[in-house]
Amino acid sequence: MARYDFASDNTAPAAPEAIEALVAANTGFTSGYGTDAVSARAADAVRALLDADAEVRFVASGTAANAIALAALCRPFEAVLAHEHAHVCTDETGAPGFFGHGLGLVGLPGASGRIDPAALAAQLTRPDVAHRQFPVALSLTNATEYGTVYSVEELAALTAPAKAKGLGVHLDGARLANAAAAGFDLKAIGSLGVDILVVGGTKAGMTATEAVVIFDRALARRFDARLKQSGQLPSKGRFYAAPFIGMLESGAFVARAAHANAMARRLAELSPFPLRHPVEANAVFVDMDDATLGRLHAAGWFAYRFLDGSVRFMCSWAVTPDSVEELGATLRAIV
Amino acid sequence: MARYDFASDNTAPAAPEAIEALVAANTGFTSGYGTDAVSARAADAVRALLDADAEVRFVASGTAANAIALAALCRPFEAVLAHEHAHVCTDETGAPGFFGHGLGLVGLPGASGRIDPAALAAQLTRPDVAHRQFPVALSLTNATEYGTVYSVEELAALTAPAKAKGLGVHLDGARLANAAAAGFDLKAIGSLGVDILVVGGTKAGMTATEAVVIFDRALARRFDARLKQSGQLPSKGRFYAAPFIGMLESGAFVARAAHANAMARRLAELSPFPLRHPVEANAVFVDMDDATLGRLHAAGWFAYRFLDGSVRFMCSWAVTPDSVEELGATLRAIV
Amino acid sequence: MARYDFASDNTAPAAPEAIEALVAANTGFTSGYGTDAVSARAADAVRALLDADAEVRFVASGTAANAIALAALCRPFEAVLAHEHAHVCTDETGAPGFFGHGLGLVGLPGASGRIDPAALAAQLTRPDVAHRQFPVALSLTNATEYGTVYSVEELAALTAPAKAKGLGVHLDGARLANAAAAGFDLKAIGSLGVDILVVGGTKAGMTATEAVVIFDRALARRFDARLKQSGQLPSKGRFYAAPFIGMLESGAFVARAAHANAMARRLAELSPFPLRHPVEANAVFVDMDDATLGRLHAAGWFAYRFLDGSVRFMCSWAVTPDSVEELGATLRAIV
Amino acid sequence: MARYDFASDNTAPAAPEAIEALVAANTGFTSGYGTDAVSARAADAVRALLDADAEVRFVASGTAANAIALAALCRPFEAVLAHEHAHVCTDETGAPGFFGHGLGLVGLPGASGRIDPAALAAQLTRPDVAHRQFPVALSLTNATEYGTVYSVEELAALTAPAKAKGLGVHLDGARLANAAAAGFDLKAIGSLGVDILVVGGTKAGMTATEAVVIFDRALARRFDARLKQSGQLPSKGRFYAAPFIGMLESGAFVARAAHANAMARRLAELSPFPLRHPVEANAVFVDMDDATLGRLHAAGWFAYRFLDGSVRFMCSWAVTPDSVEELGATLRAIV
Repeated sequence: MARYDFASDNTAPAAPEAIEALVAANTGFTSGYGTDAVSARAADAVRALLDADAEVRFVASGTAANAIALAALCRPFEAVLAHEHAHVCTDETGAPGFFGHGLGLVGLPGASGRIDPAALAAQLTRPDVAHRQFPVALSLTNATEYGTVYSVEELAALTAPAKAKGLGVHLDGARLANAAAAGFDLKAIGSLGVDILVVGGTKAGMTATEAVVIFDRALARRFDARLKQSGQLPSKGRFYAAPFIGMLESGAFVARAAHANAMARRLAELSPFPLRHPVEANAVFVDMDDATLGRLHAAGWFAYRFLDGSVRFMCSWAVTPDSVEELGATLRAIV
Repeated sequence: MARYDFASDNTAPAAPEAIEALVAANTGFTSGYGTDAVSARAADAVRALLDADAEVRFVASGTAANAIALAALCRPFEAVLAHEHAHVCTDETGAPGFFGHGLGLVGLPGASGRIDPAALAAQLTRPDVAHRQFPVALSLTNATEYGTVYSVEELAALTAPAKAKGLGVHLDGARLANAAAAGFDLKAIGSLGVDILVVGGTKAGMTATEAVVIFDRALARRFDARLKQSGQLPSKGRFYAAPFIGMLESGAFVARAAHANAMARRLAELSPFPLRHPVEANAVFVDMDDATLGRLHAAGWFAYRFLDGSVRFMCSWAVTPDSVEELGATLRAIV
Repeated sequence: MARYDFASDNTAPAAPEAIEALVAANTGFTSGYGTDAVSARAADAVRALLDADAEVRFVASGTAANAIALAALCRPFEAVLAHEHAHVCTDETGAPGFFGHGLGLVGLPGASGRIDPAALAAQLTRPDVAHRQFPVALSLTNATEYGTVYSVEELAALTAPAKAKGLGVHLDGARLANAAAAGFDLKAIGSLGVDILVVGGTKAGMTATEAVVIFDRALARRFDARLKQSGQLPSKGRFYAAPFIGMLESGAFVARAAHANAMARRLAELSPFPLRHPVEANAVFVDMDDATLGRLHAAGWFAYRFLDGSVRFMCSWAVTPDSVEELGATLRAIV
Repeated sequence: MARYDFASDNTAPAAPEAIEALVAANTGFTSGYGTDAVSARAADAVRALLDADAEVRFVASGTAANAIALAALCRPFEAVLAHEHAHVCTDETGAPGFFGHGLGLVGLPGASGRIDPAALAAQLTRPDVAHRQFPVALSLTNATEYGTVYSVEELAALTAPAKAKGLGVHLDGARLANAAAAGFDLKAIGSLGVDILVVGGTKAGMTATEAVVIFDRALARRFDARLKQSGQLPSKGRFYAAPFIGMLESGAFVARAAHANAMARRLAELSPFPLRHPVEANAVFVDMDDATLGRLHAAGWFAYRFLDGSVRFMCSWAVTPDSVEELGATLRAIV
């Protein structure tokens, strides 16, 4: 597409802060496999972002990062609880079962991507029987798959009962920057009992890179071997770490996400179609019938139906106000 | 290390041609998951390099690329034949068994990293019995783990009997550029019966990226789903493809490797230590006792013992003639 | 429990025909791993039962047999369609994902355990996209998990569109004897396009043994190695084969199941509680509130709630008319 | 083969004590999945045999039992140390890698099937690096694959340094009865630091059944779910437990093995061929050239070359003195 692409927040290029840091890191010889000074500095930046004394690794793939996190929390004959429309459940070609060797995923309901605490509670009281994969971990996503943002209190209402039952907690932060820009306090994650967090770089405006943050140090034991075997311990680790330096030390990580969120709010204002979900981060989901969607495509804008049947528009750091106005005008024209 | 690092060919930065292409690709919106124009152009460049009409994918990790290739050729209750010191056997934390769900690896002997054809022949005549993982694929490496380079004829002497028995063939080309620079004809790979080839970008002077080339189109069916599940279908695929454009269209891929090979030859000339293997690509393996190795380390040069007990020096595109002379002088001083 | 146990059809001992054949086979030396004369004779008996020229293996576990069958039909990044309450989906601790290395299971709805053909059709027209595990196999169960029995025509209405789309077909016949006793023609299975069938021995009144029947000979290649690696190629294979000889050659396989089915019908007549599903095989599912279930337990009869919330009673070959009358009287007393 | 078969100790039928106990257990209704009274009584018998307060499960397959034990001790990116000719390394079609999702096996040398303590010590001092599967468990076999028997002291010389380094210990007791009959004290196993033991039933003269003994209670957590997912939690568990009752309560377990061992010793006396290994249990390995082996086969006796090139004869409980004399006469005739 020659113009702006609202189909996903991964259609954008990398932000200047990210690409410049990557280029800046491309000098001199370094040791490999994440032991270099660039990786160390980026890990410090992540720890500062979270105010947490945690282990940090940089990997190429969010799919792999999340799946490896679940595999670290759950044995093959056990299960993970997640929102039924979470990315790990619906969009990763079964990667959790692949990296986790058959581990189970139990989908929980909940409005607009947030897990219903009552549904979680019901799972936590089910008996532990041998013919079923018993849940030992809870996987959360913030911002959620439907562009809503859990507050710290809302997350605590899920993590507290889970931790009380001994479950591990994973947080998929593919859009953590957008959650932060919406007011979610990143420094509270550690106190919520999260054991492994994936901080998304790709959708936050970096090249393809994700930070795996291991709060539970016991899980970190031999983690590099786990990553190596999984094809996620890059020899030239600096190229995965550098974009985080560029985005975090400058504050662009949250600032760029704030722009994306603002663009989504503006698009929601312009849209004549009913909103399916609250617009709290960088996504707009609207009700639109097939004929109208056809007219939208004919007008040169790509968007597709999501799992809940609504039509999704994603705003990235690179979306411009003009493009939002232009899309808004198209939406009003085809209604 | 502030100076040159001969410990590996992955301690170098990316070459200018690679990083400039990456930066050039960082513009505009593109579709995701390898469907973009950058990926298409890079795939064309790979096909031109090989003079082959093959499927091409770009992934982040050589470990994953090789392991996924083996998994595509071999079921869990079958086995792959490889040199006993091949990277897939010794340096990937069991990644082939992980991605291949327990597939077997059978190590074959052979001088200086080349598989002994007689050892291969012996395996090909073993009976197919249920209590053993029967070999169904042959994994080759060029340049080899010991810095030697198979000729086309030498490879044919291995692939021909393997194909005659119905085995699939994988070629690990982590250092294919160095093999090409040493005279190996890349356009002959297709005719050798190779089913899947991994063209190394990382060690050839790119950022972390590898090209998976699927000659056997039947293997390509649903390959993107295979990659996605394995965490190797990057959403922002352009960043994995672009360095190949920069290096291949300019000819730097082979030219930079030719420099690395020349540096290795010069280092071999300078070395007062006996060479363990012929220096045909970018590696120098020498006999050195522990006391001498200690003096080398004390002088500020890092190198380590390899599987065969010799000490390895790797030359990358970034090694300078001065640094080779300097290391050579040190070697002569500590002998 | 000292008395009859209606909790499952695996609480019964083995029928005399099975145990006597097992004892009869316990003589002399035989070769191992299913190559013995007892296994050959039992395989012939299975082929005669089905009127099919198929490969037959005898294994210890139905869970493993079904999971191995699915692994043979489906790669890890692909999926199997099955009824959402099928045993493979709900009661096997994720065994298909374990043996199939993360393969996907897609649950389909349908009344009383039969898959709704419209739901199947909807899946068969979904696009094949890389981020989803695309269905390549259909798993069926007869008699179903809810004690209903597919007719040949009903199965054909599912297998025909699946085969037309290139899907493999698996039939879980844990209670195939009960289906046969209810009129299902076993000799029609081959013509339905079933690729792998598991003929249940355990629930049919044998010791723990199941027959894996491979109609698609291409799937049989190296199947013994597959079984061996999976821990399902018993060295003393005669003990898994012999019960099938005893039950099949005597006709007890169907005759004993006919008794079980008749007992279920009688129990249904006696029950004062509404039937949740048609009683077509050896199961009775009734609506019963918790207080009443408590009184049943207090009266010394164990039964439990099934996935659909109803209370299940299973009749095996060993259930006697007296015990059914006795249970019926209790049911009428506690209503 | 109409006559005695010395090819393996699994060609024999089950001993009377085993089959009679199995038939005796075939009465009345029992709960499933190992929760029945027969399984409880058999577990008590195993605990008494070992004088150990351990968890006991009965499974169908030794291959699965060993592989599951290793999977319980070792994560996929870690490795198990075992004798290079141990059954888990050479004869199970890669089952440890399958059940253990790619876990590594590191083969250690040692004369006649016993691990060389120096080779173990060398492994225990290797550095823990990310690109290699680091050993976290030691797998032992008694009696060994070559018919020798570790003394308690010899085992302690291996388990003590392994435990000191934090490794888990697995003992493959496929022929533990033969070891016991040779004087190995079964009641010492617990004090040796063994975490999981597999007590072989099949080769000891039972139907196909093995006892998994879990000394380390922490490993027992959710073990039934592990077994269920692996297809090794039989619903009719009594049939796997009963043979142990028959063999253990009567003392036949060791007595029958003592007979087998005595037959092997007698065969060794009669053999004109050089013994390759000490005859300490029920195996005889001799040097024999191909022409002679051909004559042996022509005379109607089956035996095959083992991994070390020698010809193996196995004596089971069912081998008679006459058959040994007859084989001995043949051996002397063909020499």
